[in-house]
Amino acid sequence: MLIVMKSDATDSQIEAVLSVIEELGFKGHPMPGATRTAIGITGNQGAVDPSHFENLAGVAEAIRVSKPYKLITLDLRPEKTIVRVGDATIGGDELAIIAGPCAIESRTQAFAIAEAVRRSGARFFRGGAYKPRTSPYAFQGLGEEGLRILADIREAYGLKIVTEALDEAGVDLVERYGDMIQIGARNMQNFSLLRRAGKARLPVLLKRGLSATLDEWLLAAEYVMAEGNYQIVLCERGIRTFAQHTRNTLDLSAIPAVRRVSHLPVIVDPSHGTGRNFMVTPLARAGVAVGADGLIVEVHDQPEHALSDGAQALTLEQYDQLVSEVRSIHEVIAPAAVG
Amino acid sequence: MLIVMKSDATDSQIEAVLSVIEELGFKGHPMPGATRTAIGITGNQGAVDPSHFENLAGVAEAIRVSKPYKLITLDLRPEKTIVRVGDATIGGDELAIIAGPCAIESRTQAFAIAEAVRRSGARFFRGGAYKPRTSPYAFQGLGEEGLRILADIREAYGLKIVTEALDEAGVDLVERYGDMIQIGARNMQNFSLLRRAGKARLPVLLKRGLSATLDEWLLAAEYVMAEGNYQIVLCERGIRTFAQHTRNTLDLSAIPAVRRVSHLPVIVDPSHGTGRNFMVTPLARAGVAVGADGLIVEVHDQPEHALSDGAQALTLEQYDQLVSEVRSIHEVIAPAAVG
Amino acid sequence: MLIVMKSDATDSQIEAVLSVIEELGFKGHPMPGATRTAIGITGNQGAVDPSHFENLAGVAEAIRVSKPYKLITLDLRPEKTIVRVGDATIGGDELAIIAGPCAIESRTQAFAIAEAVRRSGARFFRGGAYKPRTSPYAFQGLGEEGLRILADIREAYGLKIVTEALDEAGVDLVERYGDMIQIGARNMQNFSLLRRAGKARLPVLLKRGLSATLDEWLLAAEYVMAEGNYQIVLCERGIRTFAQHTRNTLDLSAIPAVRRVSHLPVIVDPSHGTGRNFMVTPLARAGVAVGADGLIVEVHDQPEHALSDGAQALTLEQYDQLVSEVRSIHEVIAPAAVG
Amino acid sequence: MLIVMKSDATDSQIEAVLSVIEELGFKGHPMPGATRTAIGITGNQGAVDPSHFENLAGVAEAIRVSKPYKLITLDLRPEKTIVRVGDATIGGDELAIIAGPCAIESRTQAFAIAEAVRRSGARFFRGGAYKPRTSPYAFQGLGEEGLRILADIREAYGLKIVTEALDEAGVDLVERYGDMIQIGARNMQNFSLLRRAGKARLPVLLKRGLSATLDEWLLAAEYVMAEGNYQIVLCERGIRTFAQHTRNTLDLSAIPAVRRVSHLPVIVDPSHGTGRNFMVTPLARAGVAVGADGLIVEVHDQPEHALSDGAQALTLEQYDQLVSEVRSIHEVIAPAAVG
Repeated sequence: MLIVMKSDATDSQIEAVLSVIEELGFKGHPMPGATRTAIGITGNQGAVDPSHFENLAGVAEAIRVSKPYKLITLDLRPEKTIVRVGDATIGGDELAIIAGPCAIESRTQAFAIAEAVRRSGARFFRGGAYKPRTSPYAFQGLGEEGLRILADIREAYGLKIVTEALDEAGVDLVERYGDMIQIGARNMQNFSLLRRAGKARLPVLLKRGLSATLDEWLLAAEYVMAEGNYQIVLCERGIRTFAQHTRNTLDLSAIPAVRRVSHLPVIVDPSHGTGRNFMVTPLARAGVAVGADGLIVEVHDQPEHALSDGAQALTLEQYDQLVSEVRSIHEVIAPAAVG
Repeated sequence: MLIVMKSDATDSQIEAVLSVIEELGFKGHPMPGATRTAIGITGNQGAVDPSHFENLAGVAEAIRVSKPYKLITLDLRPEKTIVRVGDATIGGDELAIIAGPCAIESRTQAFAIAEAVRRSGARFFRGGAYKPRTSPYAFQGLGEEGLRILADIREAYGLKIVTEALDEAGVDLVERYGDMIQIGARNMQNFSLLRRAGKARLPVLLKRGLSATLDEWLLAAEYVMAEGNYQIVLCERGIRTFAQHTRNTLDLSAIPAVRRVSHLPVIVDPSHGTGRNFMVTPLARAGVAVGADGLIVEVHDQPEHALSDGAQALTLEQYDQLVSEVRSIHEVIAPAAVG
Repeated sequence: MLIVMKSDATDSQIEAVLSVIEELGFKGHPMPGATRTAIGITGNQGAVDPSHFENLAGVAEAIRVSKPYKLITLDLRPEKTIVRVGDATIGGDELAIIAGPCAIESRTQAFAIAEAVRRSGARFFRGGAYKPRTSPYAFQGLGEEGLRILADIREAYGLKIVTEALDEAGVDLVERYGDMIQIGARNMQNFSLLRRAGKARLPVLLKRGLSATLDEWLLAAEYVMAEGNYQIVLCERGIRTFAQHTRNTLDLSAIPAVRRVSHLPVIVDPSHGTGRNFMVTPLARAGVAVGADGLIVEVHDQPEHALSDGAQALTLEQYDQLVSEVRSIHEVIAPAAVG
Repeated sequence: MLIVMKSDATDSQIEAVLSVIEELGFKGHPMPGATRTAIGITGNQGAVDPSHFENLAGVAEAIRVSKPYKLITLDLRPEKTIVRVGDATIGGDELAIIAGPCAIESRTQAFAIAEAVRRSGARFFRGGAYKPRTSPYAFQGLGEEGLRILADIREAYGLKIVTEALDEAGVDLVERYGDMIQIGARNMQNFSLLRRAGKARLPVLLKRGLSATLDEWLLAAEYVMAEGNYQIVLCERGIRTFAQHTRNTLDLSAIPAVRRVSHLPVIVDPSHGTGRNFMVTPLARAGVAVGADGLIVEVHDQPEHALSDGAQALTLEQYDQLVSEVRSIHEVIAPAAVG
């Protein structure tokens, strides 16, 4: 925290700031300048709330310096976390591919898609049993029946099941039927859900919120870790901007940004990240090229009949092509991305 | 829904689109133009999912026409809803003022502020017992002890209690101790919470999400109403934009926009909407001038010692001044805003 | 400028930073903390470019402290600037109203509207002779013929003429025919145009760019002032956000934000700021209530036949109603807004 | 254009809309639905202005259908444009690399960097002689002296010179000394400059504006083409969003989006697109992987002493590494990106 005083601040106003700093148990470092005085604060463990200072007489601005997170940082753990789901991993040398339909619609549909996902060499199958839908009148998922279909797919194909929990009760169910708990963009700051996931015995896939800053996203992961669950994979899935040619703007700079501060693996969702079928493969290539640890992709055997998000789902043929293209890029950039 | 065909679409591609429309039980209206054919769809009750069409051969674009909501609309209920909380109302002739601290920190603090709120003539007291905090290490509220203090304030001052529920269990508690359930911006699309609030016996204050479009916000209200609770007040509290001079950008155009389509009352939160003490009163004036049904404002007896959001809380003196200013404006514009 | 060192920065890295600071002619203030060292910089007149430091070994972050502007600040001139256009003023006690069509389309149209503007008591007439249009195929304005019509309106009605210059040659023309040079949102960072306006003998109306931060906007004014023209009025006209219910999001917090740092008057454009007819009057009321020095509003005698921006223009009746409503609010808030 | 009537629109209101359509010389297609009538418009060549209809009685909404551009479209020219600059090309099989410093600071600096750029096999050298700077007090470039240095670099190394024109006079100068006219993000809607560039005898590099939609960007290119200059390269350089971990958010989805509608080549600027040195190479890889025709990159021999934008410039070593990485990716994806 750095307190910048107004240019006409009096000595007694500066003294008053220093004594508030002392009351809080920190140490103030006054630093007189040509036109104004700034006061540095040290001795704080976490972030200092700027509101302690912003309205004091003579204060122009309070600027944060320390970052508010601890457990997710490279300071704490310099080597990258490898999340293990049975014998599959995310964050290691292998490019992780999580594929499947947006929603589980029927056993037939799910098995047809799972068959293709397995054949592609991917290790993870995704599919929603409980869907967060903007409208209460849209298809809300098959519920527990969907989870049972997912469990059967794991049995039949050996794929690891990644599926979303919408609330605390949903985490119980995913623990029973699945392998990895997805927390969706709209729930990224559902703190009750984050705390429950922090007590779960499964790894967590934490999607970035539609308008989450990097800090907010990392702090959401910090909520999960603070409860004891260290197995977290971050997922960039597009942010909300003024742009209209996509459903969301995929922010690939988030991948090097996360790498710079955190040991957690990070993957990319080019399906929600664009919302448009013809963009998914180019952005998947870009996601791997930028250095992501994996991809989560929507695939459907009949996208034109999909009950949700059909416009962005790949056909099975398009999906096969995507896997082949991203694997070539991963081979080429693997050594570079490690740095 | 309007399907726009590519300029080189063949007759058989047009036929294929028409037969998908029929399969879905709707009626297609082909409309050949100079350079391309468009196809209108009628017969649908709710919105048609554009993904049924966007990837069909020959289709250039699928454009939504119908709006996806029903219960919140003026079509359904042309007269404005007046939400009643005991003998206090929101949405009627009176300007509703909801004031209090961000978080309940102690009995002494809460009573000191409630005293001033009561004296100002406001009918509602706000205060968080469970706080959604970006960081797991920040003050999370007093919990049920905070709710008990709020209940005592109701007893002592006759103020109606507005307080936030963070999850389904939280709704149970607010039903026990409070008068109105606040759903925060970060939970605007927490659909499990919305459904639970839809079954509650108390009115709901539904804040707009940080990056919620008008449609998404109204559909969140539709979730609550679809469960049977029609007593909803919308609250504009600022959206996330590139601008850095405020914590959020207060979008006052949302008030006439809501009025244009919905019968629900809508209020403004100039405290979170700006995040900066010196902006709260000017934006409160603007919120009343634009035609809002009320305000929700953070007040603190010692803002510089507040445990959360101190930078935006008004002192008791500033709050009194605000009430006096907005009341003058409300008197002047009351007839205009009705139109 | 504050340089934050990494937690593992060595003493010699800190020394290296200090010597770069010295080379630049400034003074460095090392400030060792519990986990890391920060170094303050003083002695600089303007802003220090952070890029001198960000890539030095051991540096975590370089944070700006000084603001980069001078002439627009209250530090330089504590009393508010009153811009004088003949006997009319902007920034004084009177609420300035600038009204007229988006584009001058014909002598008949312009005179019909000017008649109504004059009758309303407004002192300024707006109208574009050169229009910045997104498409090269849209109506581009009448050019010099439009300026001649504007000059005749000044003659006939005594209204002051505010009209846009799109380039340096355009400033010459406005100097010949008009009273105030408008610089549009799309040209807010057209630095050649800003410098030319800085040499003009007329006051400048400087609109905020669609995605301009407060600092960028104030620095654009600084460009004009640095050339010697101190007669500037700022104009908030909406920013680009994700929101779709308006053409732009009117950011009324910009008015108190400008007041806090600058002596320049600031007005609001509720027409471009919303882009929708039914929102113009409510947002005009809000703009006056928040404390703006005036309004610029689009009016048309036949909005449904307007050659540009018809959807947002008020009819003459709607305009009269607006003027009456904002005048009532201005009377009520005048003393408050001064503070 | 599609006119959607309100659900309670009367027959005579529908008739009135139809007669306005006829007056404009178009043909109306009424299409009665279950709850409301929609009216399609055909016969128009370009876009119809929605404002002709939005305020007519009974009209709920006017929705654009036709796109407003012509010359940039694949409809007009199905094969991709290859921009030729002497014997170098952008848009063909070769990956175009444009590299150099942000600003030309001295002959020594420029030659040192040009030497490295030439050695890397790149064909284009970039460098600003006139710099658009947010602050009037920041380094504004060497002016014509900078252009002379650039011309000498062309002579010495055979590199094609890409440099920015800030205004119409600047285009004259670039025509004299350079090979390609850069139009910067802040000038993307400086229509006088676009028209002048449309009459230039050199190709144009048109950067996307900070908050430009896809349509606005393509229409800016349309302005240039409408004057007769068909040699245009588009450049994605990051957009302004709420995100704070980068200077801009690089929107790589713009590349497939442009491909879908236009024959113009499109390149990526990972330097301005991120603003941070450590992100440039990962995002350059992503830009090539997504299918861009080339890159424009800032390189400096001493980034820590650069007079502008030093924080994002690569060192010569980092630049060599970048070229090697993006070339490997280009080889792998070349066939895929063509599709």
